Amino acid sequence: MATLRGFGNPLSPSGRAALVDDPPHHISADAIQVIYRVDPDKARAYLPDGLDLHPDALAYAYVADMVKVSDSHPDQAWTEPQWSQYQEGILGLYCTYQGQPGRFSAYIYVSEDWSVVFGHFMGFAKKQGVIHKTKIQPANPAFGPIGPGSRMRGTVDRFGRRIFNVDIQLTEKIDDDAVPSHGHRVYTYRHIPSPSPQVPDQRQLFALDLDRATTIDAWKGTGGVEIFTDVINEDLDGFQPLEIVEAYSFQRGWTTKAGATLLREDHR
Amino acid sequence: MATLRGFGNPLSPSGRAALVDDPPHHISADAIQVIYRVDPDKARAYLPDGLDLHPDALAYAYVADMVKVSDSHPDQAWTEPQWSQYQEGILGLYCTYQGQPGRFSAYIYVSEDWSVVFGHFMGFAKKQGVIHKTKIQPANPAFGPIGPGSRMRGTVDRFGRRIFNVDIQLTEKIDDDAVPSHGHRVYTYRHIPSPSPQVPDQRQLFALDLDRATTIDAWKGTGGVEIFTDVINEDLDGFQPLEIVEAYSFQRGWTTKAGATLLREDHR
Amino acid sequence: MATLRGFGNPLSPSGRAALVDDPPHHISADAIQVIYRVDPDKARAYLPDGLDLHPDALAYAYVADMVKVSDSHPDQAWTEPQWSQYQEGILGLYCTYQGQPGRFSAYIYVSEDWSVVFGHFMGFAKKQGVIHKTKIQPANPAFGPIGPGSRMRGTVDRFGRRIFNVDIQLTEKIDDDAVPSHGHRVYTYRHIPSPSPQVPDQRQLFALDLDRATTIDAWKGTGGVEIFTDVINEDLDGFQPLEIVEAYSFQRGWTTKAGATLLREDHR
Amino acid sequence: MATLRGFGNPLSPSGRAALVDDPPHHISADAIQVIYRVDPDKARAYLPDGLDLHPDALAYAYVADMVKVSDSHPDQAWTEPQWSQYQEGILGLYCTYQGQPGRFSAYIYVSEDWSVVFGHFMGFAKKQGVIHKTKIQPANPAFGPIGPGSRMRGTVDRFGRRIFNVDIQLTEKIDDDAVPSHGHRVYTYRHIPSPSPQVPDQRQLFALDLDRATTIDAWKGTGGVEIFTDVINEDLDGFQPLEIVEAYSFQRGWTTKAGATLLREDHR
Repeated sequence: MATLRGFGNPLSPSGRAALVDDPPHHISADAIQVIYRVDPDKARAYLPDGLDLHPDALAYAYVADMVKVSDSHPDQAWTEPQWSQYQEGILGLYCTYQGQPGRFSAYIYVSEDWSVVFGHFMGFAKKQGVIHKTKIQPANPAFGPIGPGSRMRGTVDRFGRRIFNVDIQLTEKIDDDAVPSHGHRVYTYRHIPSPSPQVPDQRQLFALDLDRATTIDAWKGTGGVEIFTDVINEDLDGFQPLEIVEAYSFQRGWTTKAGATLLREDHR
Repeated sequence: MATLRGFGNPLSPSGRAALVDDPPHHISADAIQVIYRVDPDKARAYLPDGLDLHPDALAYAYVADMVKVSDSHPDQAWTEPQWSQYQEGILGLYCTYQGQPGRFSAYIYVSEDWSVVFGHFMGFAKKQGVIHKTKIQPANPAFGPIGPGSRMRGTVDRFGRRIFNVDIQLTEKIDDDAVPSHGHRVYTYRHIPSPSPQVPDQRQLFALDLDRATTIDAWKGTGGVEIFTDVINEDLDGFQPLEIVEAYSFQRGWTTKAGATLLREDHR
Repeated sequence: MATLRGFGNPLSPSGRAALVDDPPHHISADAIQVIYRVDPDKARAYLPDGLDLHPDALAYAYVADMVKVSDSHPDQAWTEPQWSQYQEGILGLYCTYQGQPGRFSAYIYVSEDWSVVFGHFMGFAKKQGVIHKTKIQPANPAFGPIGPGSRMRGTVDRFGRRIFNVDIQLTEKIDDDAVPSHGHRVYTYRHIPSPSPQVPDQRQLFALDLDRATTIDAWKGTGGVEIFTDVINEDLDGFQPLEIVEAYSFQRGWTTKAGATLLREDHR
Repeated sequence: MATLRGFGNPLSPSGRAALVDDPPHHISADAIQVIYRVDPDKARAYLPDGLDLHPDALAYAYVADMVKVSDSHPDQAWTEPQWSQYQEGILGLYCTYQGQPGRFSAYIYVSEDWSVVFGHFMGFAKKQGVIHKTKIQPANPAFGPIGPGSRMRGTVDRFGRRIFNVDIQLTEKIDDDAVPSHGHRVYTYRHIPSPSPQVPDQRQLFALDLDRATTIDAWKGTGGVEIFTDVINEDLDGFQPLEIVEAYSFQRGWTTKAGATLLREDHR
């Protein structure tokens, strides 16, 4: 009798062929995040039942260079650097569940397949994208050191189309905890369609509390968001910015475990 | 209350943002397939419980240029050709379930994210790969027309490493139904890990009968398979060829529906 | 003393490290080509001195799946299929040099680095792009056989932006020689900038006559061209279509040699 | 009469379509560099005539995350971050020309087409590759801060094959000028093959002195180099390590101008 191993497919005798490594995953981000106001009537339509939009109708646009080290492969960043790196772009909404604040990422674009699939397992709405973020190397004669006035842009493309830009111009260094965290609580909505009429689809709302979250190198700035609504396989109207509220640049780290709390299950 | 639509994530008000289009998907392949004998003791370890290895311990290596047209977007190949194209490489085993023949694809590499994720929904063990297959264009002065003696190779790479090669040299045109179909039955093993201790993992064995399967332009040939077992995030020892049995080149089309039959569920 | 070998850099003792293989290259294309009228005043600005625009101000948009087999590696398509395949998209102008007809490809987008660099050596104005063309696989339940009414599109993207689309809907099969060839003469303009004030730039107009050109599987149709002029690192205004003249689908093969004729050299 | 503008092809009326921006280019690198001894008899065969191998037969393996800002587009890193970023991997030899020390990069792999082509213009032996380097994000729970013991690897792949790895484990922070610079002099060998028997090939040896070179964030460590000689379109035997000499991690910036000095021209 076979004993097939792995966190997910492909299962194999040793387990080492799985697309996604066993969690926990130690994650970190070198990020730009712009918080902005959207039309609440349009934005609500993107929230799963149970989540209430932030009273100020706050959305966020985020682009980051990411590192993931699987707990089961502590030397991963060293032995095969490609496996530990990805880029990520997010459009999401701040919200509450029964009064408890958090965030819901309605669209997540990542560069790597394993991250897309891990997202679908966890309830993160991921697709693959081509993501870039300004890289300021202070030794470059064209740059000064990173400081007030430095400008950075994050860009997300998919299928040869620009999806969104997120911009920041730094104004001041701030304390690490001055970057709003909304409880480091992430709401995810898992929708796993079924291959068979005999098996129901799964639609589950989860809360995932990020473990060991740390923020460093935080800056505040002026920001901008540009959403390209002519992209025909996206549905981004509810994310058009009405007003920019805040813009941040920071480094953040945390650990993602398969330890989410099930909040509700929807049946159709 | 939100009505979120889509076959899977990302769900959205219109449904058009989903990574995977609603099935049915009309699929076709321009394929090389080599059938070969493997070590039965090693190969059995790749089959989920319930599937019995073919008595001759037959495996297959396959590389194809693929087209998918979603039934909901009949003009997809015309409006955005990129969305309808992918490349695929497979290593699998012929097998039976309670005596009924079919095939089980233990490793499937595809070029596109939507196909990877659709695979995980359906029970296909997919990862992203870089796949190429010899393209013979008869107008090229270096080629004659496709015919006896024509040689083609399929290659699969991932993370900068070659995973396998599959080769054919054509010997004779054959009848369409002379390509073994094993009932056009595909066994899939869905393993959906859970984000939460409150929700069990899903491990389900399905049978999927391909609808409207058609084979054309079939050729027989001599074949070869080369498996690169130095790839550290794969687990391919059981697929080493002992003896080449048959090699084919063909075009095949079918329709994939979410109409699989649940054969068993495994609980750990 | 070293003897460094190779058609171009990287040179090496064996010569086998060169990015570009020694010509001749045996080339073939599975192509869509739409011929259309542009504003002659705008279009002339894209022609190097010595070339006169076609009196009807005819431009062409072209997308093709390409195969290249280097004469020095006759088994290339078989041993490493990736090395022999690329995709290509072109915007060009029909023109004459001293009355002799030909064509000038002002913008050429190809998928592979070796083709970009070979282009710069030869005078082809190449950049890398992401190019797709509708692939009609007749075994697919969504397609009929290729015939009148079949629709195909070619798309060219670069840096996450769509650059152009070229469309055809087939109307009738035509004779191979009914696809206009303009003498199978290609005019190229080589501009090699110099790394040093001691060495002049090279600006040379060449005529290259394609060898052994063969056209097969030719169809005529109705066509369309869409140019996206919001792409900021392109300069495509002169290629906006005023009127579609003809549209073709065909397979074509030829041999490209380093046998061009120097027509003029420009010095600044 | 047309006035076609651009540093190189594609030329256009505005000049903004050129693949390569006008130099100067302000360049910077976040690099790993390992210096090692090779077999002098084998290594000499990679040097163009006029260059003498370093008496200790020193080679270098280098992988870096690079930023380029074109002087003509000072906001490039901000307006389109993708255009200003690339990755680079190099295998080269330390050498002298008439006693003047410098370095000769025999193989350069970069991620972007414009860098490949600029390389061919300048005499850098570039191909496209897939390059990764360990990214240590200190906020990640899996990492401590960068310091003694931190390990990093650079990897270079091309056409689905690993070409080389370069490793460092940091031992101590060092002064910026303690990273050997060899005069910040780069020797390049330009080989531009001709499309025509009427035009000679160009084979020119240049010296390029990097302008405004600055090194910061320098670390010394223990190192390793692994060369994969089974890659059939490379020629890397002369770069096999005999002994590791030194390993560094650093940030470096400079300005690259088209201001090289022509040292010799070779005619065949």
